[in-house]
Formats: sequence, structure tokens, C-alpha cells
Amino acid sequence: MNCEIISVGTELLLGDIVNTNAQYLSKRLSDLGIDVYNQTVVGDNLNRLVESLSIASNRADIIITTGGLGPTDDDLTKLGIAKALGVEMILDESSLKKIKGYFNKLNKTMPIINERQAYIPLGSQAVENNNGTAPGIIGEYGKNIYIALPGPPKEMKLMFEESIVPYLRQKSKSNIKSRTIKVIGIGESMIQEKLGDMMINQKNPTVALYAKEGEVHIRITAKEEDIEKADYKIKEVENVILGMFSEDIYGFDGDTLESVVNGLLQKKNKTIAFAESCTGGMISSRYTDIPNASISFLNGVVCYSNEAKINILGVNRETIEKHGAVSMETAEEMAVGIKRISKSDIGISITGIAGPSGGTESKPVGLCYIGLAMDNEVKVYSYIFNGNRAKIRWLASTKALDILRRAILALKE
Amino acid sequence: MNCEIISVGTELLLGDIVNTNAQYLSKRLSDLGIDVYNQTVVGDNLNRLVESLSIASNRADIIITTGGLGPTDDDLTKLGIAKALGVEMILDESSLKKIKGYFNKLNKTMPIINERQAYIPLGSQAVENNNGTAPGIIGEYGKNIYIALPGPPKEMKLMFEESIVPYLRQKSKSNIKSRTIKVIGIGESMIQEKLGDMMINQKNPTVALYAKEGEVHIRITAKEEDIEKADYKIKEVENVILGMFSEDIYGFDGDTLESVVNGLLQKKNKTIAFAESCTGGMISSRYTDIPNASISFLNGVVCYSNEAKINILGVNRETIEKHGAVSMETAEEMAVGIKRISKSDIGISITGIAGPSGGTESKPVGLCYIGLAMDNEVKVYSYIFNGNRAKIRWLASTKALDILRRAILALKE
Repeated sequence: MNCEIISVGTELLLGDIVNTNAQYLSKRLSDLGIDVYNQTVVGDNLNRLVESLSIASNRADIIITTGGLGPTDDDLTKLGIAKALGVEMILDESSLKKIKGYFNKLNKTMPIINERQAYIPLGSQAVENNNGTAPGIIGEYGKNIYIALPGPPKEMKLMFEESIVPYLRQKSKSNIKSRTIKVIGIGESMIQEKLGDMMINQKNPTVALYAKEGEVHIRITAKEEDIEKADYKIKEVENVILGMFSEDIYGFDGDTLESVVNGLLQKKNKTIAFAESCTGGMISSRYTDIPNASISFLNGVVCYSNEAKINILGVNRETIEKHGAVSMETAEEMAVGIKRISKSDIGISITGIAGPSGGTESKPVGLCYIGLAMDNEVKVYSYIFNGNRAKIRWLASTKALDILRRAILALKE
Repeated sequence: MNCEIISVGTELLLGDIVNTNAQYLSKRLSDLGIDVYNQTVVGDNLNRLVESLSIASNRADIIITTGGLGPTDDDLTKLGIAKALGVEMILDESSLKKIKGYFNKLNKTMPIINERQAYIPLGSQAVENNNGTAPGIIGEYGKNIYIALPGPPKEMKLMFEESIVPYLRQKSKSNIKSRTIKVIGIGESMIQEKLGDMMINQKNPTVALYAKEGEVHIRITAKEEDIEKADYKIKEVENVILGMFSEDIYGFDGDTLESVVNGLLQKKNKTIAFAESCTGGMISSRYTDIPNASISFLNGVVCYSNEAKINILGVNRETIEKHGAVSMETAEEMAVGIKRISKSDIGISITGIAGPSGGTESKPVGLCYIGLAMDNEVKVYSYIFNGNRAKIRWLASTKALDILRRAILALKE
């Protein structure tokens, strides 16, 4: 079974709101083993809505609409469905009673305009809205199922979970399970080359790649009636991929690089501090986005000026004068300095040129030095990142966190 | 002229990501006076993509696609366009050179797979990608214009603004001009109340509100053939609004709170340093997002642990023991401390409870103290912010920047 989601609302076409409803429904339908081949957005315009419904009815089994169930003139979804199907609109007495009851509960009389919400296409069933006035509908017409849900996300989600999920479970037979493997330090093309046939020829489970900024996600998806069989099939492919990429894999599913690093530091009972120049606090900010960062994170210094590098971190003035603030030598002293003043087990430093200006031929925009001070050793890595200022800062902070991750992994127990 | 946006990517149909690209483009097209009647999402599947392109070519003048320009087998957008149009794919030598150059800069050889990205439909023009490897395309075929943009939002936005906006402006005839006034420190409903009739009855120019996290944007839009007439109409309304909100207006159009604060500090020849606990570096990170932050920003300390507050900023151990790390007293000493060690003119401090845990009845999640040390004075402000961890951190960092802005505005010349 496959489904098309039609989101109705001019505010979506004006870009006033993001279509989170389509995402929510897509995700949940995927969990239920129902393929979504198209999402469509159409405005509060009857002709264009009827056209979109007709196109959908030819290519999808199930059509789920969101929005356009309100009481005003530009709420047209049910009328559009009736018109697309060539059926009449009829008053659903039980819905009318519930809408009146909703207003009674608020000690109000139902405005006459809300009566419109109790009309449904002939042959459909009204679906109760426990979070608002607009009832939804489910209608089976020939080979198509039409489901109309309200637009406000809270009403939509509740109705979908309470009434639509049980209905669809009955109709659908298979389960979809998926597993995401998160890889860092290798490019998308290289990963595709290594995976090779696995991506092209394998149909169940499928293997797909998603490039994110600074990392790549590999997604394995299996579809089976028996959920344990789906798990087993995924595990088989996962094991092959684990063997291919080993330490370049930083995590799975909901893991973030920051949460993985924090977890590793906690496990090894180590603390961390960051000294940032070009990333300007982004590493600390990303790291403290996770709620329990304080387990491992002690301190950060955003030593943007040379004076801050010298006075707070104890970098030698001569080092900066001789080699420059963006240099291997300065990165080294910054890493040692932040570790010393924070009394942390590990110190990470970063200095570079985020651009757009400030680059030279020998030190171009994108050049970054990342220092790692641990035990009595300091290592400095150098990179040139490509992109605008925001991208260079993001890639540099990601690389610093990954250097930290690999260093902790390499620690002896 | 009207436009259909086709977003290509199976990850959208699986609900893995929200379609922010469609929202961004819809909003920008609306600014340009181009109507969007449909947004469509289709997966990485050639036949379905060609079908969606054909449907769009019948109902829209301009078709803008996002995604599917990568180097791998499931990147099919340009091929889909060529197939829908019945034209060949040809190698664009200049794109190939740029892609090779991109890899050269990284000291890498271009993987053979990336050559695919240099192929474009015959009759189209390649559009340079200054934030990645995938070039876009613009092609005029009969009554339709096809524009293909990359999927990663940062690449898509840059290419759209740099290359597509100027192109579309040429094609469009009526001039839409708009002016955004950025307001901070008052809520959306209060602003709506003050604006009153201006929002409801005024058709040209229109006045619309956009609530952002921690601020509200008022947008005045005029549509005229004569561009000077549009400017004049906007200016009239703008003057009324300036009178209504005076210092709550922090900027216009492309201004950000950070860039405005940096500009004010530069004008008054003052320097700044931040001491952050609960925001974990977010204020410094936001501030250094602007390219010329080094004009005013000297240093930041992310004193997450008590030891960092004591050892680096010189907060008294007794103050923390007596009043807690989240207290007016600690915020005061942090502000004085960061100003002293950074030798800056102004010191801003922040300490609070970002959650989700750590709150108590007297100090709930969301409580933040913001300290401002300037000349020989220190002021501490307290707030309770509502939301999840990410939102609290964002609102707190915004408030700190706004406190700083108002303090500089109040400075005597």
C-alpha cells in the first residue's frame, strides 16, 4: 500500500510555516510499512485542490490530507474531496452534536458558522477530534482510501494516533524497521564505492546514504511481516558495514557526535576543556547542547584576541609574533594552556581563518589547526576546510570533536 | 508568473527531515512577487520524478527543484529534467574544472564518481555552487523555466540568493519592495494590538508580522511598477512604526542582533567579553558568526564548572557556596571577573538553569541571571524563560545581547 500526503493551506505556499505535518505523517507511515511516494502542498483554492486530489487518486492507494477543515470560507478540503469523487456533502448529526457539546463545555453557544464543520462527503465516516472542533473523515471509495485530518499539529497528531493508526494497521500487513549508522571522516562517494553492490542491487533490506554537513548516515531498511525477521535482516547487513568502516562509525540512530564523546569521556572518567579561536565558542556551545554535558565538560575559553591567548591561556607572546596566531605552535600552546588552567584531563584547541577575509597565499581561508593535549603529549592537526564562514566553523568544530572521539577510543583502559 | 517547487529526496518521504527548503523558497518567491501554487515532494526515483516534472510543466511557469544533484546513483534530478524534456545530458567542461578545483584545494584527486555532477541537460546553463561541489542549472524550454538547486540548505540558499534571485528579478515585471523592521522585547500580540488597522485594512503596502524566537519582524511590502513609488509608500508606513516602537527596534532587513551590537560597540569604541555558564558558549558563538566580530569581541569564558568560575573568573568560593552558582551574586562576580581578565570595557555574564533537570521550586528550569559590568557599575537582571533546553539557551543568549545593546545605546557619546 502506498500513500500520498496532501497538505492544504495558502500559508504553506507563502512560506509562513514549515510543513511539519507532512514530516510527522511520513515518518509514522514509514513505521507502519506504508510507502509515501509523494507529498503535495496546495493552497485554499477549490479547483487546484480538486486537481491535486485527482492526480493523487491515480497514483496512490491512500490519500491523507491535512488542513482546511476549519469553519471559514477558505476551508475547502472536504468539499474538494466530495467534488473530486462526484459525491454530495451531507450533514453528520453526530458530529454536529459533538461540536455543539465542545462549545457548551466552554459555556458558549456554537457560532452558526461552525455547523459547516459537521458536513462530510456522502459515503465517508466522521472521525472525532478530541483536541478541537473540526472532525476528520475516513472514506473508502473504489481502490482509494481518503483520510482528512485537521491542520493544527496538536489536533492532527492526536487524531492520527487515536483513530487513523489503528485503522491503517488493520489495512496494512508489513512492518518496516530501519537502522541508521553514522559515519565521520570519509566522504559520501568513498562510502558508496565501498558499499558498491549493496546499495544498488539490494532490495530488502535497502541501503541508502544521506550526506550531512561533515558526516554521512547509512540507513538500512527492512520490510517484513515478521518484525523479528526484519531485525535479523538488518543485523546481517549492519555487521558487514561495521566491518567496513569500524572506527569511522561514531554512532547509531539518535546518537550525536557530542553525546557519543560525552559518553566515552564518562566511561573513561576523563574531563575536557576547549580553547577556541576561529570557532568562537561553537564547540563549547554544541557540546553543552546535550543536557548532561557537565559530566565531562569543565570549561571553555573563546580566546579571540591575541591578548586573551596570552593572558588567559598563557600562550607566549613570542610564539604568536614569530609564527602567527594561526599556527601549529600557537595551537599547541593553546591546548596545553586550556588543559592547565581548567585542570582537565584533555585540552582541545582550535585556531584558524574562518573568512571571508584574512586569508593569504600561505594561510588561506579555511586553514585550521586543532591541538590535542592529553597526558603529557600534545598533537596538532592541520586542515583546510571549504565553504563560507558558517560552514568552515561547523566543519572545524565537527573535526575537533571527532579528533577528541578518536583519541579517547585509543586510550588504554 | 507562477512557480512550482519540487523537492527531491527519499529522506523527505521517510520523514527523516523537514522540508525547510520549500518554505525558504516559497517565502523568497513571495517576496519577489512570484506566486507558488504547488509544492511537491518526490523520492529518488527516476520515473516518479519525470512524472512530477511533467505535471508541474503543465501548471507552472517556473519549476524549481531542490536536491538530487549529488554524485551518487540516486542523485537523479538533472537526468529527470533531461528525460522530461526529451533532451540529452552533456558534459559542462567549466563545471568539471570547478569541481576538480574544489578537490585540488583539499589536496585530493576528484573521485571519478564526481564527474557526473558536471553533466547538465542540453540547453541548460550550469550555475556555480560556492558552498559545495554540485552545480545547479537554469534552463529555458518553451514556456517553462527549469531551475535545479542543491539539497543541503546552506548550498541551496547561497546559490538561490547569489544567482537565482538576480535572474528572476529580470524575468518578473512588477516590482515588489519590502522592508523588515526587527523588534525585540515586546510580544507579537502586543505589536499586533499597537499596529491595529494597519495590518488588517491596508492592501498596498501590506504590513505583516513574523514571530521569531525571541523577536518579532514587521514586514512592509509594496507592489508597484514604479520602484520609487514603492519606496515612498514603504517609507510612509515605516515612519509611523518607528514612532511606535523606538528603542525596541534593533534593526532592519539584513541586520542581526549581533551585527547591530558589534556596530554600536565599534561606533562607541568599546570592547566586550562574555562569561557564560548555562548558554555554554552560545553567545560567543553567535557573536563570532559575524565576520568582523573581532572589532569588539576580545574573549569569552564558558565557565561550566564551579572551579572554572572560581579559578578563571575569580568568583569567590563563598559566594557560590552561600548563594549557589545560579544566583544574582554569582552573576555579578562573573561579570566583573570576565571584564577584568579580558581587559574589556564591558563584561556580560550569564548563569542559569537550562534544564531539563536541575530545577527546584525556588530556582525553576528557565531561571537565568544576566550580569552587565560597565565603567564601575554592575547590574544583574533576572528572567524565567519558557521552553525546552535549546529554546531556553537561545532566548537567554538573545536577552543578554539585547541588554548589551540597550546599555550601549544609553551610553553618553
